[in-house]
Amino acid sequence: MTEPLPPGAVIGILGGGQLGRMLSVAAARLGLQCHVFEPGEAPPAAQVAAFVTTAPYDDPAALTRFAESVDVVTYEFENVPTKALDLIEAHVPIRPGRRALATSQDRLVEKQFLQDAGLQTAPFAAVDDAASLDAARSAIGMPAILKTRRFGYDGKGQARIMAPSDAAQALADMAGAPAILEGFVDFTHEVSVIAARGQDGQIAAFDPGENVHEDGILRTTRVPARLTAAQKSDAVLIAAKILNALDYVGVIGVELFVTPAGLVVNEFAPRVHNSGHWTQNGCIIDQFEQHIRAIAGWPLGDGTRHSDVEMENLIGDDILRIPELATSGAAIHLYGKAEARPGRKMGHVNRLTGPA
Amino acid sequence: MTEPLPPGAVIGILGGGQLGRMLSVAAARLGLQCHVFEPGEAPPAAQVAAFVTTAPYDDPAALTRFAESVDVVTYEFENVPTKALDLIEAHVPIRPGRRALATSQDRLVEKQFLQDAGLQTAPFAAVDDAASLDAARSAIGMPAILKTRRFGYDGKGQARIMAPSDAAQALADMAGAPAILEGFVDFTHEVSVIAARGQDGQIAAFDPGENVHEDGILRTTRVPARLTAAQKSDAVLIAAKILNALDYVGVIGVELFVTPAGLVVNEFAPRVHNSGHWTQNGCIIDQFEQHIRAIAGWPLGDGTRHSDVEMENLIGDDILRIPELATSGAAIHLYGKAEARPGRKMGHVNRLTGPA
Repeated sequence: MTEPLPPGAVIGILGGGQLGRMLSVAAARLGLQCHVFEPGEAPPAAQVAAFVTTAPYDDPAALTRFAESVDVVTYEFENVPTKALDLIEAHVPIRPGRRALATSQDRLVEKQFLQDAGLQTAPFAAVDDAASLDAARSAIGMPAILKTRRFGYDGKGQARIMAPSDAAQALADMAGAPAILEGFVDFTHEVSVIAARGQDGQIAAFDPGENVHEDGILRTTRVPARLTAAQKSDAVLIAAKILNALDYVGVIGVELFVTPAGLVVNEFAPRVHNSGHWTQNGCIIDQFEQHIRAIAGWPLGDGTRHSDVEMENLIGDDILRIPELATSGAAIHLYGKAEARPGRKMGHVNRLTGPA
Repeated sequence: MTEPLPPGAVIGILGGGQLGRMLSVAAARLGLQCHVFEPGEAPPAAQVAAFVTTAPYDDPAALTRFAESVDVVTYEFENVPTKALDLIEAHVPIRPGRRALATSQDRLVEKQFLQDAGLQTAPFAAVDDAASLDAARSAIGMPAILKTRRFGYDGKGQARIMAPSDAAQALADMAGAPAILEGFVDFTHEVSVIAARGQDGQIAAFDPGENVHEDGILRTTRVPARLTAAQKSDAVLIAAKILNALDYVGVIGVELFVTPAGLVVNEFAPRVHNSGHWTQNGCIIDQFEQHIRAIAGWPLGDGTRHSDVEMENLIGDDILRIPELATSGAAIHLYGKAEARPGRKMGHVNRLTGPA
């Protein structure tokens, strides 16, 4: 166990989107500075970070300067190129570690890891071509969903197979990328657990939230989720099992399907998670600070929930609702993005719906 | 009434200390950017602000560039030079306005304003020399306290007169500056009200907090304060009276002495206030966001308190208590200051002590 980072230490963040932005603000609260590495111009996180590097992930000189200027590196998205990570890790620790990242980057590896850990998942099979798709369909049945193994998010890189005639188009949609066929899970609703593991192995979990998606994008998260006491403790135990199996340091987001046969793991994200944004107004310590505490070697904070909360994402033109939302009593969190494209996450609001 | 500032607009902040830092973070939440103007090197606010100008307040070119680059200007301390304000105001509105600033910059003007508004204050008299001090002492009696009219904060520029023999030294301590003699108020405790007034005249007040000072510096604020229901509504009405009389826009901090004869106004600060830091963890909208909403022409937010809170300032070497505080369940707020000098405010912690 290393020493906790002292005030003034610098946290490197790969990616300058809204998650990096909210991580930077949380780090500042603890007296830590952030250095954001982001290829794109004018990243949202730059507005609240002490240092910014604008460079592509295949610029070794920029990556080296970045790695040498920070005390620890974290990331706000899973798809950081392996070479960039290798180069950074030669200088400074990356948290959460490489195993968590490698596991979550590949849906097939992730599913196998979850099964090996004794957790329930959707039925799945690897698909590389028409023959393996046929075999997978025979094993899994229909309906099923074909997904690229890598680089998918917010419903992208996915194709449903509802009837045999859908199979050829679904495979074509993968554009030759290695894929995974997943059976449908008959679930009543989806919940997620945001949990953290410190460098000392301490684990803290926020109360599970209940998620509603639209068009593959998270729309709302409500706490408390509709769960029995047993389901709630199961959800936290599943997250803890994943954290321990990966010797994880930081915050993880674990999505779970609630079914009559128990909780089925959908996927996990090795980072702060959209479905944990409610913690900003429902807890004294939010998911962003919890992540910073963990990767900085600090003790985890108190994530007790003081209020019931409903989080709603503001997507695309939802940003035009700000004047109305500003008078609604909700807490508004905008990401500083100049352009409101369809499907783009522009911000979110948290409404307190009662004491916890 | 002007239009509310849209996402991406820029708020200028005079002063780059911890108040400017926390204002910047609140502005970012609303999708607004901040430009901090600060003469000193490495100001705490720079770590979380989109733009920073490092220049003295007597640099007209830098002030003009600053004023032209922002949509509204606010300040985190009262003692901005008048010439700088004149120059800025030729380009962009300053909020809260000049009258609030001029009134609070001078203890004598402030006391007279409060009396004219029908509010109770300590007995006071202007002191410019030994003759006026003698006259003031005769009118006010002892004990009394001699204070410079301008530039005092955290107990600086003050001298107590407990006995006639203290008078000469007290006057010498003023170093020729215009002063005010104030009688002591026999109070049981001190409370403060943090209130906001929007551009449309709407007023919102946070619950009063109870303050404890040590060596002239705020040590703790607790909510709820020990007040009867009548005292609590009096406190809010006093703040509202001041806000309306000054045609104020923004957050104000009003310090009140609780006495058997009612609430006596000690002073007000035309800005966010140390005794309002508890709102960061006790309310869904904190004083910093409330100030940004007001000066940006937004509707005020919901400042309802969801929890009881105790705020404790971390002063000087208190920063060494961070490892212990990090495990205490408190929310830590550090200011990013490199050097911990005695009496310097380094951060604060908020502890939730129960539901509201």
